[in-house]
Amino acid sequence: MKIDGKKRVVIENLQPEIDGGRFPIKRIVGEKVVVTADIFADGHDTVWTNVLCKRPGDNKWKEVPMKLRENDRWEAVFVVEETGTYLYTIEGGVDHFTTWRRDLRKKFDANQDIRVDILVGIQYITDSSQRASADDKKTLLAYIDMLKTEKNRQKTVSIAFSEELGNLMNEYRDRKFASNYGKELSVIVDRKKAIFSTWYERFPRSCSPEPGKHGTFKDCEAILPEIAKMGFDVFYLPPIHPIGRTNRKGKNNSPVSGQNDVGSPWAIGSQEGGHKSIHPHLGTLEDFERLINKTRDYDIEIALDLAFQCSPDHPYVAEHPEWFKWRPDGSVQYAENPPKKYEDALPFNFETEQWRQLWEELKSVVVFWVERGVRIFRVDNPHTKPFSFWEWLINEVKSKYPDVLFLSEAFTRPKVMYYLAKLGFTQSYTYFTWRNTKREFIEYITELVQTNVREYFRPNFWPNTPDILPEHLQYGGRPAFMIRLILAATLSSSYGIFGPDFELCVSEALPGKEEYLNSEKYEVKHCDWDRPGNLKDFIARVNRVRKENPALQTTGNVQFYEADNGYLVVYGKTTEDFSNILLVVVNLDPYHSQSGWIRIPINKFGIDADQPYLVHDLLSDGKYIWHGENNYVEFKPHNLPAHIFKVRKKLKRETDFDYFL
Amino acid sequence: MKIDGKKRVVIENLQPEIDGGRFPIKRIVGEKVVVTADIFADGHDTVWTNVLCKRPGDNKWKEVPMKLRENDRWEAVFVVEETGTYLYTIEGGVDHFTTWRRDLRKKFDANQDIRVDILVGIQYITDSSQRASADDKKTLLAYIDMLKTEKNRQKTVSIAFSEELGNLMNEYRDRKFASNYGKELSVIVDRKKAIFSTWYERFPRSCSPEPGKHGTFKDCEAILPEIAKMGFDVFYLPPIHPIGRTNRKGKNNSPVSGQNDVGSPWAIGSQEGGHKSIHPHLGTLEDFERLINKTRDYDIEIALDLAFQCSPDHPYVAEHPEWFKWRPDGSVQYAENPPKKYEDALPFNFETEQWRQLWEELKSVVVFWVERGVRIFRVDNPHTKPFSFWEWLINEVKSKYPDVLFLSEAFTRPKVMYYLAKLGFTQSYTYFTWRNTKREFIEYITELVQTNVREYFRPNFWPNTPDILPEHLQYGGRPAFMIRLILAATLSSSYGIFGPDFELCVSEALPGKEEYLNSEKYEVKHCDWDRPGNLKDFIARVNRVRKENPALQTTGNVQFYEADNGYLVVYGKTTEDFSNILLVVVNLDPYHSQSGWIRIPINKFGIDADQPYLVHDLLSDGKYIWHGENNYVEFKPHNLPAHIFKVRKKLKRETDFDYFL
Repeated sequence: MKIDGKKRVVIENLQPEIDGGRFPIKRIVGEKVVVTADIFADGHDTVWTNVLCKRPGDNKWKEVPMKLRENDRWEAVFVVEETGTYLYTIEGGVDHFTTWRRDLRKKFDANQDIRVDILVGIQYITDSSQRASADDKKTLLAYIDMLKTEKNRQKTVSIAFSEELGNLMNEYRDRKFASNYGKELSVIVDRKKAIFSTWYERFPRSCSPEPGKHGTFKDCEAILPEIAKMGFDVFYLPPIHPIGRTNRKGKNNSPVSGQNDVGSPWAIGSQEGGHKSIHPHLGTLEDFERLINKTRDYDIEIALDLAFQCSPDHPYVAEHPEWFKWRPDGSVQYAENPPKKYEDALPFNFETEQWRQLWEELKSVVVFWVERGVRIFRVDNPHTKPFSFWEWLINEVKSKYPDVLFLSEAFTRPKVMYYLAKLGFTQSYTYFTWRNTKREFIEYITELVQTNVREYFRPNFWPNTPDILPEHLQYGGRPAFMIRLILAATLSSSYGIFGPDFELCVSEALPGKEEYLNSEKYEVKHCDWDRPGNLKDFIARVNRVRKENPALQTTGNVQFYEADNGYLVVYGKTTEDFSNILLVVVNLDPYHSQSGWIRIPINKFGIDADQPYLVHDLLSDGKYIWHGENNYVEFKPHNLPAHIFKVRKKLKRETDFDYFL
Repeated sequence: MKIDGKKRVVIENLQPEIDGGRFPIKRIVGEKVVVTADIFADGHDTVWTNVLCKRPGDNKWKEVPMKLRENDRWEAVFVVEETGTYLYTIEGGVDHFTTWRRDLRKKFDANQDIRVDILVGIQYITDSSQRASADDKKTLLAYIDMLKTEKNRQKTVSIAFSEELGNLMNEYRDRKFASNYGKELSVIVDRKKAIFSTWYERFPRSCSPEPGKHGTFKDCEAILPEIAKMGFDVFYLPPIHPIGRTNRKGKNNSPVSGQNDVGSPWAIGSQEGGHKSIHPHLGTLEDFERLINKTRDYDIEIALDLAFQCSPDHPYVAEHPEWFKWRPDGSVQYAENPPKKYEDALPFNFETEQWRQLWEELKSVVVFWVERGVRIFRVDNPHTKPFSFWEWLINEVKSKYPDVLFLSEAFTRPKVMYYLAKLGFTQSYTYFTWRNTKREFIEYITELVQTNVREYFRPNFWPNTPDILPEHLQYGGRPAFMIRLILAATLSSSYGIFGPDFELCVSEALPGKEEYLNSEKYEVKHCDWDRPGNLKDFIARVNRVRKENPALQTTGNVQFYEADNGYLVVYGKTTEDFSNILLVVVNLDPYHSQSGWIRIPINKFGIDADQPYLVHDLLSDGKYIWHGENNYVEFKPHNLPAHIFKVRKKLKRETDFDYFL
């Protein structure tokens, strides 16, 4: 055991820290990192301690002095200002000078003799002066002179407590026996879209305005204004690559396909190319690049699908047979989860001896699209590829392109989902899709935002996906779609829908399943996007509320409040300074009228019990003046199923009339 | 980043683990270590995983296969069989053969073609056969033959699932790509007294039967039978060394002492010697060794006080001035906590450049007494000496003498107390002394036994000490002493009292303080040990109950139950197999009658709601037949303030009469 017996300060239980520092925490540009730790020394001596932070390349650490909160817990805050990585740790030591000052004060107050103590203090100052710059040394020596010559007890103590002397003694303190935390922890800093994003998923091949025609990137361009009008800022396209012919799936996932069947876009690769190629019916690489450019006019970004699997016709199969698993009969191993078979897709064999080359090739796929302007990837089934691959890939890409974001589409066991987030995924799909009751929402969201999961797992809530038409949407009608949208959009600062089925309230499922009937995964579809009953205006309104209210632009700030009706979910979201206070009340029942009393913690918002306040429903534009904690709400089916209240405090003014902030 | 891309299994959140493995957990000989961890691989493959454990010197790890509990959490148990250190960790990998079997079964059940799958299985068996012993290889090749030749589907699958084949495939599995946890964790294993000990503290100088005479080790010998009769197994002596003269304290901590004042035993050292010497009035080293020998007849051990400080007359001061702090006026620095001064004791200056020599000398003090037969030390104020010193000292001593136990007398801030326990102290003083209400007991004990504190912090409950006569004992009379004793003795498996003041219910304090009037710390005292009202028989009874009931010999098994009266504390302690079930009900009110309904979780004990059961009060010997969960209890002041019920289930027999186990 290597020991330095003179290092007396202990630094432990540093937060935030993920798995002993094995993984970084996550922040966005401009966010704070609040660092706390238990820090103490033996005996009664005072402790000094700093949070240290820097970029990995920097030579010098920035020091932020920590403050003692309570029970030996110290705290300091630093702000991350750019994308990329920051490091942080803690150092600390015994503060002999401050200890001396404290004891001097006590002895002075108890009328004890302090003459020898002043001599001890002079020793400390002399020590520090030897580490000081020439100017500061002069100042310190002057203090020594004053302490030596001053005869008045009271005045001597005043000199010892001078602020300038304290600052110099801190600056030139002896750090030889400082302890350090022993680990450097890291923060990955993303741009804001990492936590605040509004996704619209749509198959480009179904974007043609002409029924029966295969959609193109040009058709995608044409619908950008409408997507922007709804308030989305990410347009996510399922795979855009050539689709294999061998074992192509027919409509409704039929194992037999006809000549006109278009197949699943996830069966990537044909003689026309693989993961770096574009399906010829969608257009050319130039068309794609023009689409990317066009999205910028609408503050929309394209998100591409990273589906690392191949159709049997993918060029890789012939060029790199060593990347696939071959069966003893000479056939190639397709994807399966017995007894289910996915004959149109081959998994990569990540246990191949040539895993390094495979990893490099897959990285080159990502870089290929990044260089064409794509900065967001939705990753298909990451949990079926090795964890270390993702950690490597995401680090490699982000070290060069720190603005790239990866959304993990892992609908699997909770610990696997969390682990993928730990090792680098920017955002993650969640169980929101299957949460239904008030209790389920409260439990799940509490787990996401009130445990250390919040340090690395950024939820993205999806009411539906091409794979999932949940039962509540099959049977709840239009109100259910509105309810799910409001929950997704206000509980989570990132959410997405699969359109146009969502905004058109499509609810026809395969019998007994949570899957779409005639799924777009296997055919080109066409819709009347403006048909009566569509939710486009409603979605636009909800997304406008999100844009205009910073309280809805983070997830971790959600707080649930009480309601006496089990169908009513009530929660608040506020900015840290309470300048933006939102209060959401959702009726989970799509069939019946529901009403009840809800309880708002108005004193937390800075509203007194006897003070009226205005709640302004940003959905209906209704305004109500409320008093006190308990208030009544009522919902009727086929009206709006929720309130998104902005809470406005009444300003107390000395004029004749009051108005609301 | 060093990566092996083919290691696919993740092992995280291993429990028990203290601060990322920085500190060992603690166990006693024969105890279990239940190891759990989150373990998973990408995809759908099955995982194999073992807990590995060994002694530090062993070459080979012992493997204990883990079992999946739920939600990717795996568990295995190993038992520590000797004192000293054990190491443990986890390894795991993808189990291709078990995965293959699972999928084969599914395909068989779904009536799919399994011919190619059998060929895949044969490949796995062929691989393993190349790692097998000659005999086992023959067996494996025989299975391959059977699989190749068997034409019947059903029979082929039976062969694949043969138990022998499975065992051999596990034994010879490919471990090349196994993951390991990356850290080796450690367990310190103590003898049983580390968790089950009953302490009696007494000043040897006050043990003389003759009033006014200075007690000796011979007097200590004489009272051993009485101490044993009360049921104590540790006899703890405050410091037994020569006491300094300079600045000696008088009675009641007076700064002035007279010729006949004996001083505080914690002012260690005079011209007669220091920490390795014996106060001449107590006897000689031979006398001390005879006392040690004599204690063995009574199954009692002597615990010595380790108080690392010196009187100004200690030989160290002259011989090693560099181990002390000297003030600018040439005087030596005494202990102080301004404005309080302790002029009769000098702290060591652990910041000395010669700290290594100082540490070695202090270690030699411990070894000196260990070699004279002492195996238990009560350490005075460890929190005023550097933490790294204690970690080093305890490790050094225990590596040679693993049966040595150290009790930390740190009455300080909670995190400091826990840290001392983490770095090696066997037992610790606690806040029990100042806990009074039902809620305080439940909160504090829950913190001790239901958080990971239980892995390293072993409480020792003291109702009083020479330093502390708590207010409830000053005003609660004899009932208060009984209440505190029962709480200490049944909540914690280790506890101690400072006698004879405790058993004589001495309650006179310095006015307004929680300190004894005329404290034995500063004078030789004498008592009538058998005076009326003494608690010796009561204490003997309580300690006999502790010895006869294994449920009281651990602390972590305590469970609190409901009572409708706030003065009644109810808790249960059971052995793991429920062969010993104790139920303790304590009336915290020393002044009034209290009664109420208490609720016992009888179904946990294996008692049905309609089944009568016997509760046998081991204090009063009263027996009661109870039914169901809710039962009534009543206490009168000056009767016994508690029940310690042994719960006896009724045996259901097919004879005419039932009786109680």
